[in-house]
Amino acid sequence: MPIVLLYKSIPHKMQASYLKNQQLFYADDIPVPQLEKNQALVKVELAGICATDLALCQGYYPFEGILGHEFVGTIVDAPQAPERVGQRVVGEINMPCGHCTQCQQGRTKHCSNRKVLGIKDHHGAFADYLTLELDNLLPVADSISNQQAVFTEPLAAALAIQQQIHITGSMRVLVIGGGRLGQLIARTLALTGCDLQVVARYSSQQQLLQQHYIETVAESNIPHATFDVVVEASGSTEGFKAARSAVRPRGTIVLKTTTKAPVSIDSSWVVDEIKLIGSRCGDFKPALRLLEQGLIHPEDLIMDSFPLAQTKIAFKKAAEKGVLKVLFEMNS
Amino acid sequence: MPIVLLYKSIPHKMQASYLKNQQLFYADDIPVPQLEKNQALVKVELAGICATDLALCQGYYPFEGILGHEFVGTIVDAPQAPERVGQRVVGEINMPCGHCTQCQQGRTKHCSNRKVLGIKDHHGAFADYLTLELDNLLPVADSISNQQAVFTEPLAAALAIQQQIHITGSMRVLVIGGGRLGQLIARTLALTGCDLQVVARYSSQQQLLQQHYIETVAESNIPHATFDVVVEASGSTEGFKAARSAVRPRGTIVLKTTTKAPVSIDSSWVVDEIKLIGSRCGDFKPALRLLEQGLIHPEDLIMDSFPLAQTKIAFKKAAEKGVLKVLFEMNS
Repeated sequence: MPIVLLYKSIPHKMQASYLKNQQLFYADDIPVPQLEKNQALVKVELAGICATDLALCQGYYPFEGILGHEFVGTIVDAPQAPERVGQRVVGEINMPCGHCTQCQQGRTKHCSNRKVLGIKDHHGAFADYLTLELDNLLPVADSISNQQAVFTEPLAAALAIQQQIHITGSMRVLVIGGGRLGQLIARTLALTGCDLQVVARYSSQQQLLQQHYIETVAESNIPHATFDVVVEASGSTEGFKAARSAVRPRGTIVLKTTTKAPVSIDSSWVVDEIKLIGSRCGDFKPALRLLEQGLIHPEDLIMDSFPLAQTKIAFKKAAEKGVLKVLFEMNS
Repeated sequence: MPIVLLYKSIPHKMQASYLKNQQLFYADDIPVPQLEKNQALVKVELAGICATDLALCQGYYPFEGILGHEFVGTIVDAPQAPERVGQRVVGEINMPCGHCTQCQQGRTKHCSNRKVLGIKDHHGAFADYLTLELDNLLPVADSISNQQAVFTEPLAAALAIQQQIHITGSMRVLVIGGGRLGQLIARTLALTGCDLQVVARYSSQQQLLQQHYIETVAESNIPHATFDVVVEASGSTEGFKAARSAVRPRGTIVLKTTTKAPVSIDSSWVVDEIKLIGSRCGDFKPALRLLEQGLIHPEDLIMDSFPLAQTKIAFKKAAEKGVLKVLFEMNS
C-alpha cells in the first residue's frame, strides 16, 4: 500500500527556508516538525512566496522559524484521521485557541492567541513537511492542478473583500496595484460584473490584466471622487493617497496590504463620510469552488519556481519590481 | 393679520456675527440677505454655537460671512410659498446644486457645488434673519420648544451614525467625548438598548450622562479590543488612539469630528480588519420625530445664552473646556 510506504518513509530531518533575526537561510538538517493532537503531517509539494514573507524578512513581525503559508501538499500522517493520509490538501493558515473572547464570538481568524502558519508561533510551508490542524486542511479536487491550488490562500484573501462588503455589478471599482495580490483581486472583482479599472505600474502587469479583458488606467489619469469602491493593494503611501482621491463621497476604501508605512486620515474623511476597511484573510471554500469551476485561472501569475536549496535566489526574484508569483517546488 | 405685519416689518439692516479673515465681529448694520427663487426669509429666534463654528474661527475652512448653522426661527417671507409665512422652522444646512454627479446619484449632502448655511458660500444663522431654500425648511411641531428645536441639526448629525451603520441592542458601544455632540450621540445610541459606555473628561459632563442612566468610563479604564463600535467625538488625537485600542477585531470606528489633526492608520488595521467610517450630517426628520415624541430632551445641554451683541463673550464661553451648548437668543 503506497500510503503506508509514504508514512514509513518520513525522515527525521528535512530541507527548509528558515528565518532567524531577520536573516533567511536554507538548511537541509531541520527537524521534521512533531505532530500534536488533531494535526496532520503534510508533505509540501508547492509553496508560494508572498509580500508578507518579504515583509517578515524585513522585520514586519518578529517571527523566527520556517517561513511560508501558501502551499499545496499531501497528508502523509494523521493519527486521528488515518483515512485522510494520501489526501491532497491546502490549508487555512490561522490556528485559533478556541477559548478566547474572539473565538467564542466566532471570529476565529482574529483569535487573540492564534498561531499562524509561517507567520506566528508555527513553522511554515517552505519546507519538505509541515504540520497543521486537521480542521485547517481542505481537500483539493482532482481537477485543480497543484499550480492552481497553491494560489488558494491569496485567492481567499482576495475574496475576503466580497465577504466584507457587498460589491455589485452596478458599481465602479478601482484596484490600485497590479502585483501578486492585485491581479487576483481584480479577477475576483471581475466576477461581479462591476465596472472595474486597475492601476498597474509595470507593463507586464498591465498586459496580464488586459489578457483577462480587465481595463487598466494610468495613476495620473484616475478620475477624482468617482469610484464606489477602491481597493488599495499597492502597499505604498502614494497608492493610499490615490485611493483617497479616487473614492467618491460615502464610498469605501479597502486596505488590503500589511506592509505599508502608517498613512494619514484628515478631516476630509468626515466631511466626505469615507469608509475604510482593513481586509486580511478569507475563507478557503469559495476560493476552491472558483478554482474547481474554472472561473479563476491563477497559474499565469507564476513567473518562476525554485528548489528550497535556492532560497535566497527565489526571495531575491520575488522581491524584484513587477515580479508576480515565485514558487518553491519541493518534488525533487 | 400678524403675518402681514411680520412681513411688512422686515428692516434692511440687521445684527449679525460676521467672520472675515478668521476675525469674528458683531455688527448691527449688516444687510438683511436678499431672497433668491424658492427661498424663504427666516427670522431667527435661537441659534447654537457648535465646534465647527469654533473651528471656522481658527481657519478650518476659509469662510467669510455670517456664521451659524444650528437654529430655529419663523418664516417671515416666502414669495413662492406665501402659505408658509408664520411657520416655525428648522433648516437642513446643505444646499445642493441638483445637477452634479453626486446630486444625480442621490447624495445631495455631498453635492460638489453645495452651499452650506454659515459654513460655505451662504450666510448663516447668527443674525436676525437668514435665507434658506424652502425645501430645506422643516416645520417644527407645537410640542417642541425652541430650546429643543435648536438642537435638531446636531441631533440629526448624531443620528447619522445609525443611518450609516446598523447598531443593535446586542452590541457593546463606546463613545469617546462627552461634549456637545458626544452627549447627543450617547442619548441617541441609548435608544437602541445597546451596552453603552461614554468617556467624558469633565465631571459636569459625566454627571449629565449619569442623570440619563448612561454609564461613564475613565479613559484609563477602557477595556482593550472589546467594543463592537467606537464613536470618536472628542476631536483629539488621544481620543482616536483610544478608539483604536478599544475596538475589537472587525469592529467599527465612527469618526464624528471635523476639527482634529490628521490621524494615523498602521498595518494593524489590516491585520485586525478594522472598519472606519466618517460621519457628518444626518436627516432632520428622524431628529424632529424623536423630539416630538419626547424621546430626546436635549435642552439640559444649554449652559448659557447671549444676545448677538455679546458675540465675543458667547464664543469665548463656548470654547471653554467642558462647556456644552451656548446659544444666541435673538428675541430682544
